[in-house]
Amino acid sequence: MTNNSTPIACDLLIEAGWIVPVEPHGVVLANHAVAVREGEILAVLPISEARIAYRPTETISRPQSVLMPGLVNAHTHNPMTLLRGVADDLPLMRWLTEHIWPIEAAVIGPQFVADGIELAIAEMLRGGTTCCNDNYFFPDVAAATYRKHGFRALVGLPIIEFPTAWATTQDDYFDRAGEVHDLYRRDPLVRTCFAPHAPYTVSDTSFERIRVLSDQLDVPVHCHVHETAQEVADALKQHGMRPLARLDRLGIVNDRLIAVHMTQLTDAEIALCAARGVSVAHCPESNLKLASGFCEVEKLRRAGVNLALGTDGCASNNDLDMFGEMRSAALLAKAVANDASALDAASTLRMATLGGAVAIGMGETIGSIVPGKRADLACVDMDRIETQPLYDPISQLVYATGRQHVTDVWIDGRAKLRDGALIDIDTAALIANARHWRERIAIIGTKS
Amino acid sequence: MTNNSTPIACDLLIEAGWIVPVEPHGVVLANHAVAVREGEILAVLPISEARIAYRPTETISRPQSVLMPGLVNAHTHNPMTLLRGVADDLPLMRWLTEHIWPIEAAVIGPQFVADGIELAIAEMLRGGTTCCNDNYFFPDVAAATYRKHGFRALVGLPIIEFPTAWATTQDDYFDRAGEVHDLYRRDPLVRTCFAPHAPYTVSDTSFERIRVLSDQLDVPVHCHVHETAQEVADALKQHGMRPLARLDRLGIVNDRLIAVHMTQLTDAEIALCAARGVSVAHCPESNLKLASGFCEVEKLRRAGVNLALGTDGCASNNDLDMFGEMRSAALLAKAVANDASALDAASTLRMATLGGAVAIGMGETIGSIVPGKRADLACVDMDRIETQPLYDPISQLVYATGRQHVTDVWIDGRAKLRDGALIDIDTAALIANARHWRERIAIIGTKS
Repeated sequence: MTNNSTPIACDLLIEAGWIVPVEPHGVVLANHAVAVREGEILAVLPISEARIAYRPTETISRPQSVLMPGLVNAHTHNPMTLLRGVADDLPLMRWLTEHIWPIEAAVIGPQFVADGIELAIAEMLRGGTTCCNDNYFFPDVAAATYRKHGFRALVGLPIIEFPTAWATTQDDYFDRAGEVHDLYRRDPLVRTCFAPHAPYTVSDTSFERIRVLSDQLDVPVHCHVHETAQEVADALKQHGMRPLARLDRLGIVNDRLIAVHMTQLTDAEIALCAARGVSVAHCPESNLKLASGFCEVEKLRRAGVNLALGTDGCASNNDLDMFGEMRSAALLAKAVANDASALDAASTLRMATLGGAVAIGMGETIGSIVPGKRADLACVDMDRIETQPLYDPISQLVYATGRQHVTDVWIDGRAKLRDGALIDIDTAALIANARHWRERIAIIGTKS
Repeated sequence: MTNNSTPIACDLLIEAGWIVPVEPHGVVLANHAVAVREGEILAVLPISEARIAYRPTETISRPQSVLMPGLVNAHTHNPMTLLRGVADDLPLMRWLTEHIWPIEAAVIGPQFVADGIELAIAEMLRGGTTCCNDNYFFPDVAAATYRKHGFRALVGLPIIEFPTAWATTQDDYFDRAGEVHDLYRRDPLVRTCFAPHAPYTVSDTSFERIRVLSDQLDVPVHCHVHETAQEVADALKQHGMRPLARLDRLGIVNDRLIAVHMTQLTDAEIALCAARGVSVAHCPESNLKLASGFCEVEKLRRAGVNLALGTDGCASNNDLDMFGEMRSAALLAKAVANDASALDAASTLRMATLGGAVAIGMGETIGSIVPGKRADLACVDMDRIETQPLYDPISQLVYATGRQHVTDVWIDGRAKLRDGALIDIDTAALIANARHWRERIAIIGTKS
């Protein structure tokens, strides 16, 4: 492959104390390097060999850091970053009806979406997240904002059975979805998918249209499913069957489906998800904070279901911290399974990277550090008080590392964070803008 | 109180955008200042008034920060910081018998204890923790290390029914406990308490001696109680009663008791704890990681039981992050109580400050920002991407803030962290020393 006499030109060589490639599973490569050209991972090899084999334009050396795939946040509502902590510690329906919905009714629009996503992108990059699966209104604005910042995203095209600022009738939602999809169908970073809100807010006919269109357009379907016991009980009353059974009857339960939350699952439903290739996006902190229930992730994992990890939106988390979410997922799974060996560190890291990539239809492109994939990467400093001593880099990433230990991030081979500083984002302006929104929104909160 | 013509001299005036004093409960004071003299809080008042009333030697201005009481870690084993992540994702008995115990047998001694605690002090200070309730062997070394670093601590005097490197017979344990107690009985920062390991490792006669001595010496009793269902089942077999009932029969269930974990509680036991003034030290992340069970903190809170919060040791957490622990406690309590309004942010913050102080017998001294208490304080920056927008400072502290947002820490009025940097600790030397221990311990791990 390499010719000793003629080093191969590349754009970037990242040398790290440890590389955790995620594929193969559970492997740690000490003193390895990644060579990148035109945004693509060319090779993963020992540093000593890399220095002979490659002639990089730029070399980044991180001897006390772990290099890992960028994190994939598999479920979020990023415009809601502007609603971080606006109403906490409330019962679900009071939280929605007295706070979140009145505020959204007053502020939803292109500017709210763009500004919320910009704040979210800054937070995600600072925490090692390089890709997200976003679900909100104004997907046209969302997609444009991700493209502008060079951030990889799957943008949900919302389908819901009532009028909003984004669309009015069922036809209107589908027409607008089609338009946004077409605009981004060949974009290198931003893709779209259908995002029917939930079984209880989307009709059979809409799900049937989504089934046909998702096959035609070859896109995922991103949907909240079995979030609470109440949702399942209501569906049994209204439809005479559990929501997952209804979705199955409508042809939605297949390998395009990203089923979010899934706190209520029978063993038969777990087997069904495994057989059909459904991906489950687990949001442990949102499930806890809203008292939604416990997702049986270890059972899902053992059944072979592809698991992804999401923070959910900042109104119910209240952050976009995927390191914190990994830790919560790994800890909670053990208590729920009553087994301290459940959801081990390597499996948790897979959820937060490759599992998320597979769920959103990017499993061939990102999620692990292997030649041929795009260079979405994060460097984590292990030379801190909080990350010492270092016995096992994968354990350390999941159980001891915080997002503040992320120093460098690349998306598609482009540097986005360097030594902890955002490269092309004006932090002070973002914070000033967040304060401006706070002034506006706090008043609505008081009035409502 | 203040004389407009003659400002009162003080050592330190801290001006903050917001002060969260914890007492009164749930209050946020905007643009307030704290005046400190000789380590004591003199006053809490609006900045504009403070500038007239006080003539400080030093003024610290933090207009975009929250000033809060330093966090009290109510249960930890700090020497085990050197075992952070040494063996994760294992069933409890394999974890103990194949990893933790063999390693401890090989390394336990004064140097391990001192070095582990120094690393822990650095981590705690960087995360806003100013006091801990530590429980390990060699309490003489532990107490000396806390005193050396000016860190406030309650040091447990271990009692256990088998020989260790620290002591051999029952008499030996009690003799040594008495010696260490006497050395620190008048120390301004370091105090001692009895630390019987657990009901299943301590005999009736030892508990009886502890009951008498804890009254004579006026010290708390720090004990793991009802950590797992197995512990309760075993006790029913061996003693014909649940551990808490046995402790009650032995006179231990009173307002000196810091009962740690308490994942298995009947309603009658909760009522007993409330009636007797027992403090419960809740360790949510340790309980999750070791699959110990779920503590019903909201039930305990509603019953009026004093709640404290602890990280447990780094072998089962794997950090000393009290911000993370607050967040985990608040989130988990909601899911366990099936109520999104359970354990609200203000109650969680109280657990991590005043509740801990009360539990360890320092409720009159620390845990809240009120005149007459010692100045154990932490400043948290709200001017970051991750802490914007800011709607509610207490919600933000619990749900959105990370320990990395702590910029300044004082213990007993002395600055210990300034602008995120440790003042009198050599970070590089600590990390080098942790690496040295890692080399030694990793080899034992492999051999065992």
